[in-house]
Amino acid sequence: MPSVRVLLGSKSDLDSCQPIKDTLAEFGVEYDFHVSSAHRKPEQTALLAKNAASEGVKVIIACAGMAAHLPGVVASHTHLPVIGVPLSGGALNGVDALYSIAQMPPGVPVAGVAVNGAKNAALLAIQILATSDEALAARLKSFKESMARA
Amino acid sequence: MPSVRVLLGSKSDLDSCQPIKDTLAEFGVEYDFHVSSAHRKPEQTALLAKNAASEGVKVIIACAGMAAHLPGVVASHTHLPVIGVPLSGGALNGVDALYSIAQMPPGVPVAGVAVNGAKNAALLAIQILATSDEALAARLKSFKESMARA
Amino acid sequence: MPSVRVLLGSKSDLDSCQPIKDTLAEFGVEYDFHVSSAHRKPEQTALLAKNAASEGVKVIIACAGMAAHLPGVVASHTHLPVIGVPLSGGALNGVDALYSIAQMPPGVPVAGVAVNGAKNAALLAIQILATSDEALAARLKSFKESMARA
Amino acid sequence: MPSVRVLLGSKSDLDSCQPIKDTLAEFGVEYDFHVSSAHRKPEQTALLAKNAASEGVKVIIACAGMAAHLPGVVASHTHLPVIGVPLSGGALNGVDALYSIAQMPPGVPVAGVAVNGAKNAALLAIQILATSDEALAARLKSFKESMARA
Amino acid sequence: MPSVRVLLGSKSDLDSCQPIKDTLAEFGVEYDFHVSSAHRKPEQTALLAKNAASEGVKVIIACAGMAAHLPGVVASHTHLPVIGVPLSGGALNGVDALYSIAQMPPGVPVAGVAVNGAKNAALLAIQILATSDEALAARLKSFKESMARA
Amino acid sequence: MPSVRVLLGSKSDLDSCQPIKDTLAEFGVEYDFHVSSAHRKPEQTALLAKNAASEGVKVIIACAGMAAHLPGVVASHTHLPVIGVPLSGGALNGVDALYSIAQMPPGVPVAGVAVNGAKNAALLAIQILATSDEALAARLKSFKESMARA
Amino acid sequence: MPSVRVLLGSKSDLDSCQPIKDTLAEFGVEYDFHVSSAHRKPEQTALLAKNAASEGVKVIIACAGMAAHLPGVVASHTHLPVIGVPLSGGALNGVDALYSIAQMPPGVPVAGVAVNGAKNAALLAIQILATSDEALAARLKSFKESMARA
Amino acid sequence: MPSVRVLLGSKSDLDSCQPIKDTLAEFGVEYDFHVSSAHRKPEQTALLAKNAASEGVKVIIACAGMAAHLPGVVASHTHLPVIGVPLSGGALNGVDALYSIAQMPPGVPVAGVAVNGAKNAALLAIQILATSDEALAARLKSFKESMARA
Repeated sequence: MPSVRVLLGSKSDLDSCQPIKDTLAEFGVEYDFHVSSAHRKPEQTALLAKNAASEGVKVIIACAGMAAHLPGVVASHTHLPVIGVPLSGGALNGVDALYSIAQMPPGVPVAGVAVNGAKNAALLAIQILATSDEALAARLKSFKESMARA
Repeated sequence: MPSVRVLLGSKSDLDSCQPIKDTLAEFGVEYDFHVSSAHRKPEQTALLAKNAASEGVKVIIACAGMAAHLPGVVASHTHLPVIGVPLSGGALNGVDALYSIAQMPPGVPVAGVAVNGAKNAALLAIQILATSDEALAARLKSFKESMARA
Repeated sequence: MPSVRVLLGSKSDLDSCQPIKDTLAEFGVEYDFHVSSAHRKPEQTALLAKNAASEGVKVIIACAGMAAHLPGVVASHTHLPVIGVPLSGGALNGVDALYSIAQMPPGVPVAGVAVNGAKNAALLAIQILATSDEALAARLKSFKESMARA
Repeated sequence: MPSVRVLLGSKSDLDSCQPIKDTLAEFGVEYDFHVSSAHRKPEQTALLAKNAASEGVKVIIACAGMAAHLPGVVASHTHLPVIGVPLSGGALNGVDALYSIAQMPPGVPVAGVAVNGAKNAALLAIQILATSDEALAARLKSFKESMARA
Repeated sequence: MPSVRVLLGSKSDLDSCQPIKDTLAEFGVEYDFHVSSAHRKPEQTALLAKNAASEGVKVIIACAGMAAHLPGVVASHTHLPVIGVPLSGGALNGVDALYSIAQMPPGVPVAGVAVNGAKNAALLAIQILATSDEALAARLKSFKESMARA
Repeated sequence: MPSVRVLLGSKSDLDSCQPIKDTLAEFGVEYDFHVSSAHRKPEQTALLAKNAASEGVKVIIACAGMAAHLPGVVASHTHLPVIGVPLSGGALNGVDALYSIAQMPPGVPVAGVAVNGAKNAALLAIQILATSDEALAARLKSFKESMARA
Repeated sequence: MPSVRVLLGSKSDLDSCQPIKDTLAEFGVEYDFHVSSAHRKPEQTALLAKNAASEGVKVIIACAGMAAHLPGVVASHTHLPVIGVPLSGGALNGVDALYSIAQMPPGVPVAGVAVNGAKNAALLAIQILATSDEALAARLKSFKESMARA
Repeated sequence: MPSVRVLLGSKSDLDSCQPIKDTLAEFGVEYDFHVSSAHRKPEQTALLAKNAASEGVKVIIACAGMAAHLPGVVASHTHLPVIGVPLSGGALNGVDALYSIAQMPPGVPVAGVAVNGAKNAALLAIQILATSDEALAARLKSFKESMARA
């Protein structure tokens, strides 16, 4: 049963989001993965968000470029923590996506990371899971120690 | 039967959106009006968008500040033209809302107007209605002439 | 008789505006097409705007980069709805064109889409035409459904 | 024993961070609260971050304006999830703090919220705690339902 | 016979443009003054630009906020030098007007000054006139000397 | 005797400023040309500005990237009109140079053109010279007419 | 004999630069103080920069808003370290001054501080002086310790 | 004994920081050099800052991209002058790093240079050392003279 659900706004974002898969796998965290545009597939996207908690998901990561509504739309349909990854596709190079993900209104938070910050999104999801998983917390601690020694 | 549906993301935006009501009324265009946050009331917002066409609505105006997902969320649920009005509430003063409304992905357009451009949103809705309403087109023409004489 | 008029500020924008032609053709919408700079050919541009309505045009799409005055200039000469497409040519990469198209003053609206949002400009024009064309509305609905299934 | 630790970069930020206290209290979540600048009190700040996990803290919220290094500095000293709140003090009105909090390098995530997004920071912390606390999850669900009815 | 023509996009800009009148008067330069929006009064604006040279005008100053197309539109209708003054009205505080005035395409220059740079627009017009008016050049030189002594 | 003086901040800007030479030559306007950094060669730059008027120069064009102080420094040493061309070298891609050239303080104007707007800088210089040179004005008029016919 | 020279671009900046005087006085550092615009008083400004070293000055602080050329112009005339303080006057609120001060070209550095960062400019000057003044270094250390205890 | 300490946030920045080494070497200034991320190696970074003064270091140069906390973190641990070099890696192209380095809070200054301004960082360090080293000051003066002659 996956504890992280990863959503992408577009197939063209698969490469920039690969570090999410790699990092979750490296920490042994189960996830499922869906390409589901907030705008082109609103029903499917809403279901993926609404059903997440009852399917055992604990954290959702949503990645999108340009107007980047996906993380906010997902957050509107779930009480789970939602991590938003702004992507740099498009002429504004990700500032648009950063603003759209960061500037959520009071009541419906999204946890924003850097433009193209796929790896950190995965790490943040792992940190959240580790708040109730001591084995995972131990792995995070040794990850931090290995960075400090690198 | 209203031909324009006006949606606001928050009650606090009522004042900045008053020119929409005034302008539609001035041109004798029927409208209905709802406060319905895309994030706090996603189901209600989706219904207001999905049902619009079958209720006789021809154009939707959606106003929102900060992440300003409302117009895009509405557009994802209808084939009607959706006009987005970015509002300047919040520390970024409307640049966030402008980017979030303008930078919609291919397939799901939103017609963006200026930050706080409530009056122009109404005029644009009227222009759209006037493409199949000669009396309204005539009123637009004399409106333009009176501006030129003012 | 074309129902959409497409205007470009410069020949160098032909490639980025090709999706307008493709999308209008895909929906079977007639259009005409002109390269006519607002600044280098002001008289010709004014005539293309002024004569549009009497020539049967119902919506105008105007594309321009940098200062990008073309959509606003066109809008000053017609009561038809005008869709503006900001293009990313130039050192500021389209932010200049986006602001110039979005920030129209009260009384003369332009419907702005994304930087390089040519396809959405065409879809928005089709949505406008579909407010009084049930066959076109039906095609839009199946277009939305096919996106949702893709 | 507090499960959330709230850190402020400056006493002058107390008012804009009050919604954190109010929201955590509304949900019955225990927290402790410290003013500790990353730059003026680096040792104290490092200790507050390093000791958090062993003191039972599960999530840290750090608020700062201008260069806003506090959330990142805290994140460098803990494996706990760190939520960063950019504040709008200073001439750049919070864009500086937003960039500084969002653009963390790979390996050390911070969960950014909106400029002055104090309330959402608290809600995000509650969402994180609720991933392993069913009673809290139930309260979040009814909070979401009450927003949808409001 | 006025040698400078001053155009404003809106009556609401009268105060911010007063330094133009004051400075031209201080240097004894004749001018005429018109409020003529590029968008609301395109015909009148075009005539004011087209007729300027034959009416003895040598330099045009055009002031506008937001999309600020006025200076560019004027420049499209005359071979005279056109000075553009971006004004700070509107939510974007003049960055929009600055970009719209500065980023003119090749072939149709506008001489941009600072946001709200009304006084410098007048001085620049005087510098232009002084290229063929020795008395005016002498007054400019003593103006510069008096600034250096102030 | 040259009537236009062209100054560059750096040899690396020669290519982006070539259109100045081409355009002035096309209109038969004499010019001289110097590479003289405001910061690395302040004395030489000051002399080129101070001596311009007495050497018969009527307009100065100054081109620079990044901090782009050259046009302002030149303007501080002469009462002649100074045209500033912001160049896009450097990580900020010319926004820095645009602001630095546009935002001159009251008393010392610079006439700013677009980022990399070398051609328009030359045309603006020609427009200024043409205010007292009927033959040149005639050439400008036919240049405008040929653009309109192109 | 003053070891710090403080320069302001305009009298209107006196209040925002008062912390420079206060901080230098608090540390017992001698300074002199001049209002001298880079653009309105270029000769006087050049002399204040050129003569500084021979008059015993070791560090120069230059404060300016908008185009903010003063620190760069001063740096072009001296081999002493120059600290630049961007000020927030003007419609762009200091971003213009920040870019103009930060983006100096290779060969002529300016040490930039925050927009309105007058106090830090003084502290940086003191840090520089303290590299060869042990008593001053000791005062800096206790200043840092008192901040950490505050 | 090195008088300058150079710190990099990441190995990937080695190329853009090479001019620091080259310039310090050209002036015969001793330095040491460390790659030490503020976030991944906070303890090591703190030690490199804290021990610098007692190891004879007089100036620290710290280079970082994106959130770019390194210079500020270093400055929090030392009373020595710290020069910060914002680097352009990442989607925001260095604006993020520029803001994060420039906008330090009162009490803990960082001397910011241009985005990718590695050479100027070295020159600024040399200028600081030269305030108490006449031979170095003489070399700076001839460096400036050779630039003026180049």
